[in-house]
Amino acid sequence: MSLLVTGSIGIDTVSSPHGHAEGVLGGSAVYFSFAASQYAPVRLVGVVGDDFPDEFRAVLETREIDLAGLEVRKGSQTFRWTGKFEGDMSEAETVGVSLNVLAEAGPKVPASFADSEYVFLANTHPSLQRELLAQLTSPKLVVCDTMNLWIENERDSLLQTLKLVHGVIINDAEARQLTGRMNLIEVGETILEFGPQFVIIKKGEHGAMLVTSDGPVTLPAFPTKTVCDPTGAGDSFAGGVLGYLASQGEHDSAALRRALVRGTVAASFTIEDFSLRRVQGLDRSEIDRRVDKFVNMLQFS
Amino acid sequence: MSLLVTGSIGIDTVSSPHGHAEGVLGGSAVYFSFAASQYAPVRLVGVVGDDFPDEFRAVLETREIDLAGLEVRKGSQTFRWTGKFEGDMSEAETVGVSLNVLAEAGPKVPASFADSEYVFLANTHPSLQRELLAQLTSPKLVVCDTMNLWIENERDSLLQTLKLVHGVIINDAEARQLTGRMNLIEVGETILEFGPQFVIIKKGEHGAMLVTSDGPVTLPAFPTKTVCDPTGAGDSFAGGVLGYLASQGEHDSAALRRALVRGTVAASFTIEDFSLRRVQGLDRSEIDRRVDKFVNMLQFS
Repeated sequence: MSLLVTGSIGIDTVSSPHGHAEGVLGGSAVYFSFAASQYAPVRLVGVVGDDFPDEFRAVLETREIDLAGLEVRKGSQTFRWTGKFEGDMSEAETVGVSLNVLAEAGPKVPASFADSEYVFLANTHPSLQRELLAQLTSPKLVVCDTMNLWIENERDSLLQTLKLVHGVIINDAEARQLTGRMNLIEVGETILEFGPQFVIIKKGEHGAMLVTSDGPVTLPAFPTKTVCDPTGAGDSFAGGVLGYLASQGEHDSAALRRALVRGTVAASFTIEDFSLRRVQGLDRSEIDRRVDKFVNMLQFS
Repeated sequence: MSLLVTGSIGIDTVSSPHGHAEGVLGGSAVYFSFAASQYAPVRLVGVVGDDFPDEFRAVLETREIDLAGLEVRKGSQTFRWTGKFEGDMSEAETVGVSLNVLAEAGPKVPASFADSEYVFLANTHPSLQRELLAQLTSPKLVVCDTMNLWIENERDSLLQTLKLVHGVIINDAEARQLTGRMNLIEVGETILEFGPQFVIIKKGEHGAMLVTSDGPVTLPAFPTKTVCDPTGAGDSFAGGVLGYLASQGEHDSAALRRALVRGTVAASFTIEDFSLRRVQGLDRSEIDRRVDKFVNMLQFS
């Protein structure tokens, strides 16, 4: 099944206790695409400035990522983010952000992508999420993410978007903020009342929880000593989930459960090095081995 | 196999967003015993004052808990703890504590308990833990807990105790404090270097991690909307683990994995009401149903 992602493409500078990476490829759509393209070809929709380095484009071209929707806007500057991780590295501290081209008009979905069936709307203004969705003719599964900024300042618009999507993948703090609830099952159930059929709440190093009308499913993160840079973990998780679902052509409860494992494993590779360094050369067999290891770890009968 | 626990028996006063419980039965050895006695008879060693209410003793007598090691010390006062939980209830705030009889000489292991094979040394001064252990003639599996107070002030003594035990069940913050490490796998591996063959790190609502020389195993908490009072969750967890292991008469990696599930489920019941209210009337079939549900939830293949 065809899979489309819209989201940010950026130039990141990241510090962690394990080092520093200056001016590296990042952005939600990029992390998503690397994870998802392990399972299904990805159609990327996003916009960069004419300062976007050729070598970053070349990195994207190494994978089955269709760049027909990657607009290079003349005279604009690419989105830039500088962040650092400290202590237990559970949260990024944003040191600086330049929205640049992301503060201008959104990208367009090219005609060749209009028939996309599986869709991930990464975090951006909820009205832009709807605008992008409206350009698609036959979406079968639409999943979105969002962030504190829109929950605080664009709540009505966000609720409109939530009415249109089948699923939400969102982090725990933001899900709590959105619902005003503390218990994550109640948080998930409240989000279901807004429209979606499923909610996946990301808990970082503590794993994830899926909430559907069938009840909650929780799973831990893949245990690892190698945590170099958590940037992009959440978007890699979403990429693993959506890529897997698109490859299966279904999204019932059983498929969602299997997809959670793929999301978890995708995130576990991303955090092992800065930027896309770990996942760039990753092959599917290595992923599948980790999936098996994780599934076996959770086999308690 | 015979199972012995030593730890506190107390009178608690607890507030949470779900209510208030005044002067109720509590203490690590009590929570442990209720959880463990679902799987194996428990021998309790502890000391209370002569103010210890008869009705609390009667509650303990409803279960297969041998009270031959429960000393009622004349002229002494029972341990009392007052705490409250707020917000996400992840941590208890101690409002007041009166050590009372716990600040006096420790209890003795009665002769009839000296042959105990499975042993849990709940949190107390590490030298008292060793003193109690020295009274046992044939321990096969000894597991201990500890707390920040001893990690800070009695580190050498604690390290001596750790050399004598087979396993440690400890919460994440204290395990990090003990080792000076942040990553929980590294934390567990460091504790293994102190002597034990396994470490179980409790992460509260985020579940638990087992670390052995076979590597880490993580599992989430049982997802529940009913979180009334987390007091005793950790000791109930330990009780489920040790009770199950004693019932199996083995503690290899496979048994430990199954035991983790029993510990998780034991804790999930305890937190559903104040004090022992939820677990007092609990029967084993209800526990087994939740164990099955949890195991199935974690079946991702």
